[in-house]
Amino acid sequence: MIRLACFGAGRIGRVHALNAAMQPGVTLAYLADPVATPAREALAAQTGASIADPDTIFADGRIDGIIIASSTDSHAGLLLRAAEAGKAVFCEKPISLDMALTEEVMRKVEASGVPCMLGFQRRYDRSFRALRDRVASGASGPLEQVVMFSRDPAPPPRSYVETSGGMFRDSSIHDVDMARFLLNEPIASVYATGSCLISPEIGAAGDVDSVMITMVSASGRQVQITACRRGPMGYDQRLEVLCANEVLMVGNQPQSTLSITSAQGTLAAPPENYFIERFAQAYRDEMAAFVALIRDGTPALAGIRDGYEAQKLVEAALRSAATGQAVLLEGGM
Amino acid sequence: MIRLACFGAGRIGRVHALNAAMQPGVTLAYLADPVATPAREALAAQTGASIADPDTIFADGRIDGIIIASSTDSHAGLLLRAAEAGKAVFCEKPISLDMALTEEVMRKVEASGVPCMLGFQRRYDRSFRALRDRVASGASGPLEQVVMFSRDPAPPPRSYVETSGGMFRDSSIHDVDMARFLLNEPIASVYATGSCLISPEIGAAGDVDSVMITMVSASGRQVQITACRRGPMGYDQRLEVLCANEVLMVGNQPQSTLSITSAQGTLAAPPENYFIERFAQAYRDEMAAFVALIRDGTPALAGIRDGYEAQKLVEAALRSAATGQAVLLEGGM
Amino acid sequence: MIRLACFGAGRIGRVHALNAAMQPGVTLAYLADPVATPAREALAAQTGASIADPDTIFADGRIDGIIIASSTDSHAGLLLRAAEAGKAVFCEKPISLDMALTEEVMRKVEASGVPCMLGFQRRYDRSFRALRDRVASGASGPLEQVVMFSRDPAPPPRSYVETSGGMFRDSSIHDVDMARFLLNEPIASVYATGSCLISPEIGAAGDVDSVMITMVSASGRQVQITACRRGPMGYDQRLEVLCANEVLMVGNQPQSTLSITSAQGTLAAPPENYFIERFAQAYRDEMAAFVALIRDGTPALAGIRDGYEAQKLVEAALRSAATGQAVLLEGGM
Amino acid sequence: MIRLACFGAGRIGRVHALNAAMQPGVTLAYLADPVATPAREALAAQTGASIADPDTIFADGRIDGIIIASSTDSHAGLLLRAAEAGKAVFCEKPISLDMALTEEVMRKVEASGVPCMLGFQRRYDRSFRALRDRVASGASGPLEQVVMFSRDPAPPPRSYVETSGGMFRDSSIHDVDMARFLLNEPIASVYATGSCLISPEIGAAGDVDSVMITMVSASGRQVQITACRRGPMGYDQRLEVLCANEVLMVGNQPQSTLSITSAQGTLAAPPENYFIERFAQAYRDEMAAFVALIRDGTPALAGIRDGYEAQKLVEAALRSAATGQAVLLEGGM
Repeated sequence: MIRLACFGAGRIGRVHALNAAMQPGVTLAYLADPVATPAREALAAQTGASIADPDTIFADGRIDGIIIASSTDSHAGLLLRAAEAGKAVFCEKPISLDMALTEEVMRKVEASGVPCMLGFQRRYDRSFRALRDRVASGASGPLEQVVMFSRDPAPPPRSYVETSGGMFRDSSIHDVDMARFLLNEPIASVYATGSCLISPEIGAAGDVDSVMITMVSASGRQVQITACRRGPMGYDQRLEVLCANEVLMVGNQPQSTLSITSAQGTLAAPPENYFIERFAQAYRDEMAAFVALIRDGTPALAGIRDGYEAQKLVEAALRSAATGQAVLLEGGM
Repeated sequence: MIRLACFGAGRIGRVHALNAAMQPGVTLAYLADPVATPAREALAAQTGASIADPDTIFADGRIDGIIIASSTDSHAGLLLRAAEAGKAVFCEKPISLDMALTEEVMRKVEASGVPCMLGFQRRYDRSFRALRDRVASGASGPLEQVVMFSRDPAPPPRSYVETSGGMFRDSSIHDVDMARFLLNEPIASVYATGSCLISPEIGAAGDVDSVMITMVSASGRQVQITACRRGPMGYDQRLEVLCANEVLMVGNQPQSTLSITSAQGTLAAPPENYFIERFAQAYRDEMAAFVALIRDGTPALAGIRDGYEAQKLVEAALRSAATGQAVLLEGGM
Repeated sequence: MIRLACFGAGRIGRVHALNAAMQPGVTLAYLADPVATPAREALAAQTGASIADPDTIFADGRIDGIIIASSTDSHAGLLLRAAEAGKAVFCEKPISLDMALTEEVMRKVEASGVPCMLGFQRRYDRSFRALRDRVASGASGPLEQVVMFSRDPAPPPRSYVETSGGMFRDSSIHDVDMARFLLNEPIASVYATGSCLISPEIGAAGDVDSVMITMVSASGRQVQITACRRGPMGYDQRLEVLCANEVLMVGNQPQSTLSITSAQGTLAAPPENYFIERFAQAYRDEMAAFVALIRDGTPALAGIRDGYEAQKLVEAALRSAATGQAVLLEGGM
Repeated sequence: MIRLACFGAGRIGRVHALNAAMQPGVTLAYLADPVATPAREALAAQTGASIADPDTIFADGRIDGIIIASSTDSHAGLLLRAAEAGKAVFCEKPISLDMALTEEVMRKVEASGVPCMLGFQRRYDRSFRALRDRVASGASGPLEQVVMFSRDPAPPPRSYVETSGGMFRDSSIHDVDMARFLLNEPIASVYATGSCLISPEIGAAGDVDSVMITMVSASGRQVQITACRRGPMGYDQRLEVLCANEVLMVGNQPQSTLSITSAQGTLAAPPENYFIERFAQAYRDEMAAFVALIRDGTPALAGIRDGYEAQKLVEAALRSAATGQAVLLEGGM
């Protein structure tokens, strides 16, 4: 029996805790969240976990791994404690909004040797993964261009914008990671442009809401990311890859397969509402991968270095958007 | 130079006359229509044809072929005159609403040896044809089931219903012909049921507006036709064929490739408006086939016997709908 | 806490047992299966259920409901015991392959007053249900025609064919039930034709593998079912409804949203493999509905009378296929 | 009767000559091409045009308009002669590969007052046009992001690359024009990156084969163009526009509506082969627009200034690709 503890009982903590608890051969022993809410109690009841504080959890020698789904500013500290305590760790992105701290944490975690997995759940989505497997199989021929669409249903509140690090650090990091996952090659240059087109509130917080990023790899492969804080269709996550032999596309996942045709045309169902629904399967498989990592060392699809590299690219995009000029990356990323 | 004459300057006459006139190496010499309308004059001007009466046309030894696109009750007579005059003939369906006359005309036309082609234009539609070619190639494996959807945008006026022979004879004949085109095997039984669900006017004229027909071939292959005088999406013509190795489907042809996605879902453009637009390519290719039939004897995809056989099946469907029982066809059709 | 027992640890028993065990506030107390297999033990371990015999289960006063997912010939007996013991019951179709027994069981279960739900899981599929809700909302206008496609990935072994009651009773019953679910009106006539086109083995067992059924409701609405024991694309379950204002279609659910485009065209992923995967969401919601039926009497979408009525229609279809003639139903069904 | 003359009997000259000849009320009087080929003779025969030299054409006072579909280096001279002769002119892009000459020609043509239309045929494509009309209607809300895919079936030969001005000037000009058509606002910055990923021959000629361009308008709207000299699916022309209320997409136009479903999935037909087929309707409507421009001054969708502005943007993209940095446009374009 593998015993886990989960930090964070919010939206994403709930997803991970439930997925952990339903894994065969796994017990979710603890749930830690500094704020006592009905949601925390309900989640504890549903998973059978005890509510505990971090000291208890790290002192419990029977805990095999921890899940970090708490607020962003707590990630670095919990990663370091897990490394010290020798516990496997699954951490939501980002490691830290501070790049120097991010690098320090990465080095210490790597030095400790604890298994560590980053929460880039899209890597576990069956459609994205089928695309990558197809490319990896060689059937598609060499990859040449990647184009991504990444749009949220609605802009976040100003408070979120102010603590999340902004659109590039908070949201585009997932897209940049997907590009790295597909390219398998360092990035040589990043160009980004951001506009504030939809939410004056976001502009007032010094952030942008509409983003385009172009990245070129060391060998000249090209990546384009088109992102927006608002998608009129809801959550819009699409990916297209041009290879020499074929074009691969991952579309949105509709809420049902019902279509309604009238004189206006054929209306197909809109996409799954938001990331919790769209990536439900990915989150389940991601947690199974964390368990497999603990159980027998099966490598996860995203490690702590992937978190670090994606953040470096996002920082480059931020610099480019600020200066209007492309940022060259020494030695590539 | 091949010289043609067209009977009928109505909706379908216009299509055939224009297509004939634009064929390389073809002159549309005459246009015949007893009613002098502005549309007749405009069509003559656009095609360069002279307006003439039937006697002039059949007496002109330089006329190679005639196109019969005039009213249904004139078809049989014109076919017989063409046979006598030794002119190739393209005739819109049906040969006649009277089965005995239909058989007599078929026998005389066949005996005369004039090339004769029936206007089952769907056989020339590139999508339906690609489906049939695929089946004929053997790649699909043996054909097992055929399902067709056939719906008009709106019910015809009562006057049309009363002279057209009713829904089975006027409309389902195209579907029945497509089944024959695909099956390449006699039909052993026909079951049909008709309801009057949408137009009390059609019911008052003694006809139905909603039809389902099931046909079984001599070897047990099954055909299903679902038809309606009203399609809420406009003109709805779809076809699906189950073979051992694959399912082949021909969908509707949208008016554009624009789709519009909002919170309600993705709205794709509705189908081409009606048969003139939907089968524009088929009508062009059909007329080119008539020219090729005259020029070098290239067999057409539909001959006069196909018109006769389809009518026989339609009559069987009518009997079935009237009695509520399946009609067995001796020796198959 | 609601306490349930599940009869049957086979393919469908496993689905129901797992879904029951994961419902909040529900304990799966017992699992009954006369054959001791590793699968039975594994399922008991995973759900926390004790393996027990029927007598123990029916004698346990704390059991609120039973799930019948055992072999077809055990259904009637278990339904009667549940009725006598006053336990709510969820039963897989059919009630019995014998119509007289089916009717007797229905009457006794209804007389007993125990809540009883039939396993027509498609009624809980979110796409089919969205279609029905749309029709029920009135937005679509009156329903006129229903067309269904129902094809299994591959023919069953001869042994299954011989005990299942044949294709109509085993498979088409789901399609007939969906028609009833949509029509909300008695059926007045049934015409069916069956061929043996793909499996000589099935023919040798006296059954058919390719079926077309046409049903007409009391008011003339038309239903067409096209079914086959083999779908080259895998599991093929589609539904189309023509209403006065719009055409509603439920398509297959693809295995992923990846498409691959090359010179051959665009290849979209095939449908979910088979009913366990295709209807995973429906099975979950169906079990939640059983719990809601027990907990607070929320009516289920399918009761024991729906099982009886669907079987009567299937028997009529069998008679029609045997005689080649349509079967009229007195008073409608 | 409007009388036209066509310069150029090559691939695109043939399209325009045939479309001109089939317009009601239009005579194609002359065809000019310095090279006497069988194709030139056949085109003259089919359209009824006389083969003539430029002097004859410009001296013929009954000629209302000329069509310039000859080699790129002849465009500027013919435009100037048409302006001097007071003849309406339809000119294929580009005006000239030399920007100074382009500007001079534009100024002289504008000063002459002759009606002049540029051959940006995509503006006449019914799908692209439906998209623009929808945006212009206001129903979509403000436009925010534009994403285009533009891929040819196969790279051109080196000889073509060397005389065409390269990928940006030859091909991307159409995409840039479409962006201008949609944005209706000056462009403030252009970033472009080009790689040579598929054709070493193109690289040897000093050109690129894979391009990404990002443009930002004066108000911050964003445009992304992804282009490649090779599309594995054939000719790939797609367009997506994000507006506040909806996302509008124009997809490729499939060669037929046949789809084939097997265990591998559903294979839909590939797109129309290349621009001649894909834009057949657009070329027809474009020529009708030229006739309407002559006949009654109906404004064309693209004038000579649109040709000039698109070329200026393409030159900026070229500079950006050469320097790796974004190019700011004074006052916008």
